[in-house]
Amino acid sequence: MTTKSEIKRLKSLQHKKYRTVYSQFIIEGTRIIEEAKAGSYVIEKVYISESYGSIPREQNLLKNLSNNKINPIQISESELTNITGTVNSQGIIAVLKIPKQDGHKSGTLRICIYLDTIQDPGNMGTILRTANWFGINFVYLSPECVDIYNSKVLRAGMGAHFHTTIVPNFSIDAIKKSGYTIVGADQNGIPIGVFDKKSALPICIVLGSEAHGISDHIKPYVEHYVSVPGKGEIDSLNVTVAGGILLHYFTK
Amino acid sequence: MTTKSEIKRLKSLQHKKYRTVYSQFIIEGTRIIEEAKAGSYVIEKVYISESYGSIPREQNLLKNLSNNKINPIQISESELTNITGTVNSQGIIAVLKIPKQDGHKSGTLRICIYLDTIQDPGNMGTILRTANWFGINFVYLSPECVDIYNSKVLRAGMGAHFHTTIVPNFSIDAIKKSGYTIVGADQNGIPIGVFDKKSALPICIVLGSEAHGISDHIKPYVEHYVSVPGKGEIDSLNVTVAGGILLHYFTK
Repeated sequence: MTTKSEIKRLKSLQHKKYRTVYSQFIIEGTRIIEEAKAGSYVIEKVYISESYGSIPREQNLLKNLSNNKINPIQISESELTNITGTVNSQGIIAVLKIPKQDGHKSGTLRICIYLDTIQDPGNMGTILRTANWFGINFVYLSPECVDIYNSKVLRAGMGAHFHTTIVPNFSIDAIKKSGYTIVGADQNGIPIGVFDKKSALPICIVLGSEAHGISDHIKPYVEHYVSVPGKGEIDSLNVTVAGGILLHYFTK
Repeated sequence: MTTKSEIKRLKSLQHKKYRTVYSQFIIEGTRIIEEAKAGSYVIEKVYISESYGSIPREQNLLKNLSNNKINPIQISESELTNITGTVNSQGIIAVLKIPKQDGHKSGTLRICIYLDTIQDPGNMGTILRTANWFGINFVYLSPECVDIYNSKVLRAGMGAHFHTTIVPNFSIDAIKKSGYTIVGADQNGIPIGVFDKKSALPICIVLGSEAHGISDHIKPYVEHYVSVPGKGEIDSLNVTVAGGILLHYFTK
């Protein structure tokens, strides 16, 4: 039996303030919970609706959870949508512990990313997904970035959260001091292909916001600017597309 | 004076059905109207709110429109938001004529794009924006794609519509018959970098939907599949990011 006050508490996790208070966040749907199981996050609780478990993939997940001593709690569809704030319930949610990620693992990597004031949740999630695709395991965030446990970021991230070390509120100064060459994305930068990446390694790639580019207080740390050369009439690429092209270039 | 019935008619252009009936669509905001002026679309009417024209950029646009014998009609802020369905008015909208784009310009291009069942408006707009960035001027759409004059597509396109020939309801058969090598994006395809693009030119790149990939009825036309090689744990790239990396590769 889940009390009304527990439902209310779970619902409060829609807001960053309460995610911080409880050090928890919620993910929704079979696919992303499978990814969370495969990663290193701690699943604290799982809630399912009455109808969940009718297809083999759902049954597999329930079996897998049960093998890990996680027993899902049954609640109603309307309680589920109340908790998540979504219109259509996916029949399953999980409450996860927010891991502590506060240090910079110096010297273990050749490429990392610093996100400067990325505030759009869809863009943030897509960049995390792209970073994982290219095998980049460390992503650092400026304090101005959107919270990565926002539900829209989680949805766009497609599970990348569970395979990537993401460090919020991080200072670019610490990255620079640990020996990384800071390379900023800017449309007036050196075209990739011309930029000598080998002699710049290890590299930290800085992506700024689409509207304002790299922040003024980050600029003094940037040693090189690189760009994706274009030939069209419009004046910029979407930040996730530009980021994807840069990450492909720097990791290949 | 703008009558209530005219406001109602303009509002109906939020729906594809009425855009087709009137062969018109609406764009909103200074920036995109500037792009439309620079492109080849016909601006039929412009509506502005009382407060529009207070900053130099707005004054320049009004002057530019006036030089082209377009005299903006003043309406209220609430009429503007009623027409566009947005919460905050940008003070200016333009009614444009939908151009006829029905043929395939054979032999004039080395690279074009075919979009197969791209239904998310944000993805569609971002792909059009990326195509323009890389100088690709011809984009063909399968009948299952979202309407390109949908307001969200226009917003994400950032003006790319006005510099690109976009042909809806097009058949891949016609592109193949005019001599293009049909190259599909698929995560099991040949990694780019290994694929011999030079001997395949002219190339039509097919991008399918994120959920379902390239449609079954398109597959028989595809001669080669290419992929963006990855090394992460999650199983795919976002379609706009993958598309951007492919377009960068094929146009460089």
